[in-house]
Amino acid sequence: MNMEQITSNLQKNLEALHQYTATPGSGTTRLPFTKEARDAVDHIKAMMVEAGLKTREDDAGNIFGVLEGSDPALPVLMTGSHFDTVVNGGNFDGLAGIMAGIETARLIRQSGTALKRSLVVAAFCDEEGMRFGTGYFGSKAILGQVSQEDLHRYKDKDDVSIYQAMKAYGKVPEELYKAAWDTKNIAAFIEAHIEQGPVLYQSGKELGLVECIVGIQRYMVTVRGRSDHAGTTPMDMRIDAVEAASKVISKVPDWAREKGDGTVATTGFVKVLPGGMNIIAEEVQFSVDVRSRNNANIEDIVAKIRAELDTVCARNGGSYAMDGKLTITPVNLNESMLVKLEHQCKNRGYSYRRMISGAGHDALAIGQVLNTVMVFVPSKDGRSHCPVEWTEYRDIAKAVTVIYDLILEMQ
Amino acid sequence: MNMEQITSNLQKNLEALHQYTATPGSGTTRLPFTKEARDAVDHIKAMMVEAGLKTREDDAGNIFGVLEGSDPALPVLMTGSHFDTVVNGGNFDGLAGIMAGIETARLIRQSGTALKRSLVVAAFCDEEGMRFGTGYFGSKAILGQVSQEDLHRYKDKDDVSIYQAMKAYGKVPEELYKAAWDTKNIAAFIEAHIEQGPVLYQSGKELGLVECIVGIQRYMVTVRGRSDHAGTTPMDMRIDAVEAASKVISKVPDWAREKGDGTVATTGFVKVLPGGMNIIAEEVQFSVDVRSRNNANIEDIVAKIRAELDTVCARNGGSYAMDGKLTITPVNLNESMLVKLEHQCKNRGYSYRRMISGAGHDALAIGQVLNTVMVFVPSKDGRSHCPVEWTEYRDIAKAVTVIYDLILEMQ
Repeated sequence: MNMEQITSNLQKNLEALHQYTATPGSGTTRLPFTKEARDAVDHIKAMMVEAGLKTREDDAGNIFGVLEGSDPALPVLMTGSHFDTVVNGGNFDGLAGIMAGIETARLIRQSGTALKRSLVVAAFCDEEGMRFGTGYFGSKAILGQVSQEDLHRYKDKDDVSIYQAMKAYGKVPEELYKAAWDTKNIAAFIEAHIEQGPVLYQSGKELGLVECIVGIQRYMVTVRGRSDHAGTTPMDMRIDAVEAASKVISKVPDWAREKGDGTVATTGFVKVLPGGMNIIAEEVQFSVDVRSRNNANIEDIVAKIRAELDTVCARNGGSYAMDGKLTITPVNLNESMLVKLEHQCKNRGYSYRRMISGAGHDALAIGQVLNTVMVFVPSKDGRSHCPVEWTEYRDIAKAVTVIYDLILEMQ
Repeated sequence: MNMEQITSNLQKNLEALHQYTATPGSGTTRLPFTKEARDAVDHIKAMMVEAGLKTREDDAGNIFGVLEGSDPALPVLMTGSHFDTVVNGGNFDGLAGIMAGIETARLIRQSGTALKRSLVVAAFCDEEGMRFGTGYFGSKAILGQVSQEDLHRYKDKDDVSIYQAMKAYGKVPEELYKAAWDTKNIAAFIEAHIEQGPVLYQSGKELGLVECIVGIQRYMVTVRGRSDHAGTTPMDMRIDAVEAASKVISKVPDWAREKGDGTVATTGFVKVLPGGMNIIAEEVQFSVDVRSRNNANIEDIVAKIRAELDTVCARNGGSYAMDGKLTITPVNLNESMLVKLEHQCKNRGYSYRRMISGAGHDALAIGQVLNTVMVFVPSKDGRSHCPVEWTEYRDIAKAVTVIYDLILEMQ
């Protein structure tokens, strides 16, 4: 096991893939079913072949690199992540997990170990959902969870449907069903991923073992008041949408803190209409994004938001609507694989912590159906989804070694 | 005194002036030094002449219609308002006061009363400040408060300075100084104006006698946090600009209510960057507009805003800046004229209330220098600065009669 060699391979391959972006000089923008995606996929296939894997592309645009085991009747072990990115994102989100998979397979092959179960390195298509407003496209497709209707329903900003984009990319959308696996044929899924948050970096831990991917509820709230002159309308004659909205928004983070347990709540979008400095606002739209490993915490905070909106609208006048945008229930990852990973970390002398993932990943979709675990590597300053996203190659190499250990143990 | 005739004259003239707008079908848009302003001014001059007044236009673009008194050595009485509007405004804001002045003069002339003091009906140019971001241009010009530098400093959205706009309008900007009066020559200024708020309309009073025009302090506050992933950043590791800003914004209206005395405070503009639903905001810009008849109330609320910003930034991290946009001190109007007006209202059997003006007017500029009073007429539903702005012509006629009484009493 030559850590220098693993690190150097990771660096070489990740740097080589950096070129496949629609926004050179402004981070990585690699949306699904685009030329950048096709070029990256061709290069990833070549990397898989160079590592000794047999490659195939499925009908959803996912790529698999297979290191065949001696017993084809046994369910396979799958590791990997996604090759698409957000707009102006970084070079590690997704790709790090695919490259870790390729290095894991290379290590096993170089070590001469004979696998019983095949190892499948997966490169999933469209995890981010950035182009069509969806997400987990490739990972849901292998679970048979994407319908033909979905392909027509979701469209990009230029009104191109997934169906149309797939055709232009050279796929046959009608054959998407062929991408679905018989899930009995997959023993487990292991995803290495950058943390995209500050926990590991700030605590100085080398690896994160993810116990749980949080549930999410996301709403767009519209508070309606009445537009009036800010000078001539006495305080007791106004229905100020900003006052009502701010009285709710200001309390939400405290409710998340009270819950603890890693619960977070965020208002990242606020729009005030008409927006004049001397005009009382007639409407405020704001988002709330609540996440927790404990679904009851999410439900409780959402109920508090509704109750507070009821209270302020009853007191000040006005009305509101809450439009549900996203509901995901928390997913607990596989405890027995976590225990094995803890053991590998101790064996190899890596500092680690068990943690939750506050972001969704392919493991969120797959973990609802299959035995799944995630290994996080530190993100410098916790930054992600931006051009400065950075993870040390040697940290990804550490993830490679424990995944290698886990795969050998699970034969 | 024929109320039907006054009402009918007001209606005819106001309806005739409705055509001078840059946005036909979308309310009145009559910015200063435009073709619409020139056409309206020509028509207003004709109306003044038809009412028996001698007209002149000064070097600031103000129009005066004079009913000469018998003793030219006596300081004049001036009444009027402005002829410009906001964008997509109404037909009453400003014009109502000019038309009331013309009807007052017509009444006096028709009554055969010989004035000792001349009555000057003023139509001021650019009270709103909508085009150049200034305001009170014409009324400040008669006070000698507009400099040549001002003409070059302030520009419209097409980068046209006041200087350039005046030239294109046919004025000689270098001669602006000639617009200034010797203020000893003006005994008093009386402005009729629509209330632009709901107080008279909701209380069913026919006239408002304005004791005071509120002071204003307006700020643009910028709160800076740090942009992070809304899912992966624990509550104790985030610097959320929305949380910090909302904790301040939500309290400001309550501080205004605590002060009472007609104090109002408004946040009408909020901008959140970058604005993603799943991104913690790195910056929030928001406006605060605080108004009161009592300057100490304004100062105290602004101090509380600063203190609260200090507190939330100390607790959550982040920083802030407060950029002062406007500072106006309150102006008390002339008590002896108010007492006379109360007397006229009682005599004529009009319901009235003393009140404060929450908006600025030409009387705000003039009232700092000269004996000044304002008479408010009700705004339907309190609406103004919009196409549905509406005041009953018969209510303006009532203002005409009490101003007529006041002018005769002040001979």
